[in-house]
Amino acid sequence: MGRDRVVETTFPVRYAESDQMGIVHHANYVIWMEEGRSQYMRAQGMGYEQVEREGLLFAVAELNVRYIAPARYGDSVTVRTWLEEARSRAITFGYEVFHAGSRALLVTGQTKLVATDQAGNVTRIPDALRARLAA
Amino acid sequence: MGRDRVVETTFPVRYAESDQMGIVHHANYVIWMEEGRSQYMRAQGMGYEQVEREGLLFAVAELNVRYIAPARYGDSVTVRTWLEEARSRAITFGYEVFHAGSRALLVTGQTKLVATDQAGNVTRIPDALRARLAA
Amino acid sequence: MGRDRVVETTFPVRYAESDQMGIVHHANYVIWMEEGRSQYMRAQGMGYEQVEREGLLFAVAELNVRYIAPARYGDSVTVRTWLEEARSRAITFGYEVFHAGSRALLVTGQTKLVATDQAGNVTRIPDALRARLAA
Amino acid sequence: MGRDRVVETTFPVRYAESDQMGIVHHANYVIWMEEGRSQYMRAQGMGYEQVEREGLLFAVAELNVRYIAPARYGDSVTVRTWLEEARSRAITFGYEVFHAGSRALLVTGQTKLVATDQAGNVTRIPDALRARLAA
Repeated sequence: MGRDRVVETTFPVRYAESDQMGIVHHANYVIWMEEGRSQYMRAQGMGYEQVEREGLLFAVAELNVRYIAPARYGDSVTVRTWLEEARSRAITFGYEVFHAGSRALLVTGQTKLVATDQAGNVTRIPDALRARLAA
Repeated sequence: MGRDRVVETTFPVRYAESDQMGIVHHANYVIWMEEGRSQYMRAQGMGYEQVEREGLLFAVAELNVRYIAPARYGDSVTVRTWLEEARSRAITFGYEVFHAGSRALLVTGQTKLVATDQAGNVTRIPDALRARLAA
Repeated sequence: MGRDRVVETTFPVRYAESDQMGIVHHANYVIWMEEGRSQYMRAQGMGYEQVEREGLLFAVAELNVRYIAPARYGDSVTVRTWLEEARSRAITFGYEVFHAGSRALLVTGQTKLVATDQAGNVTRIPDALRARLAA
Repeated sequence: MGRDRVVETTFPVRYAESDQMGIVHHANYVIWMEEGRSQYMRAQGMGYEQVEREGLLFAVAELNVRYIAPARYGDSVTVRTWLEEARSRAITFGYEVFHAGSRALLVTGQTKLVATDQAGNVTRIPDALRARLAA
């Protein structure tokens, strides 16, 4: 857990992610952070697609992002993802987005996710899943 | 059906819909056409949200778009939507996107949708629904 | 400024904004908040499209969102937007997103925007613009 | 040119690309095709970011997509991109999107792009660029 276990994922910026300011639109980093979270969970052997198939959902409850420098079309970016906190009903992920070439820090963020059942009721995260995510 | 029954919906361009060319990114018109289709169906008294709740899905099978002139952030656009064809298992919608102010034509398009059940199998559109959509 | 001057904008949820959880994907609220900000600025007589044409950019520096309850396709939502703070080089907007029908509170958020010139250098917000936004 | 020169790019489906039908929303394939085009151009030694920096824009004029089978979150997809036609003022790309694991064909598409200058006027594609894209 924490910075001891960081998963990196790297991909090129898509043209559709740019806006008329000539930089990546700020909402796309939220999607990139989610993709970082997907890769983190797969790296821990528990893809979120599998979690959902077993009937557990992680709904985003809080989102915080700090924008330091912009990414642009033509760049590749690296998302670093780690688990900041794992509680009985909620987990918090931390993220850093870097320019893949220069390793310049572009964005930092956090998302808190609450576990729910398929009816949307907050529920307990099974211990085995929590242990695996935090391994 | 056809141009006898056209539903218009008007909304402002969102900043996130622009790209670094300074115009609306071409994928957004696909989403606008879908929103036009949503408003068409609601105007016929059968919102697609209700169709899905009753277990029928309309999956997009074909998409054709012609781009004539660009929309920009600061503009409002009007989507005109009509039903071009209603067959037993598929319906085709036609669209025109206009600049709301000048009524300049920006985009024309078509989507063909195939009816499926929740398992994804092609299915027959109930006659009552087809009649209502084409009314 | 503040809650004395709140601008509301209401629109239907688009199908493309849903995700496989059956609710609106959390990144879309960021785009809705930006649309709320666009409408706030237009209501103050200074559309952001005009600000950009005059060479000033507002780049998002901080984003905070709390998710309370989900919006769904078929709903309309209302974004309430106000100016929380106006400093010499940065402005902060506050937002609430409501279900338009029930007025249930769905999301609260904040964005801090930094003024830059077209080269991306932080710059001073002209007093006239700041006064107008805060009026 | 044509099927003699095909560039493949593979990436995982993002959660945000799903919709409430439980499959990838159809507008995302348009963005994936554009990403395939970006990779095709980079593979030919002429990234579109560089084309734009030199003052030439390729604006999408026509888009045609056929949807055969859906991609889902948890899948990786492969976009195959080739140049179908290169004329003096327009180029047409062809695409196939496959499920990366099973190689099942999901989508086929085409986009026609028109060359413009920065004012949006249709212009001639420099011979050197056209030769490079078609090499």
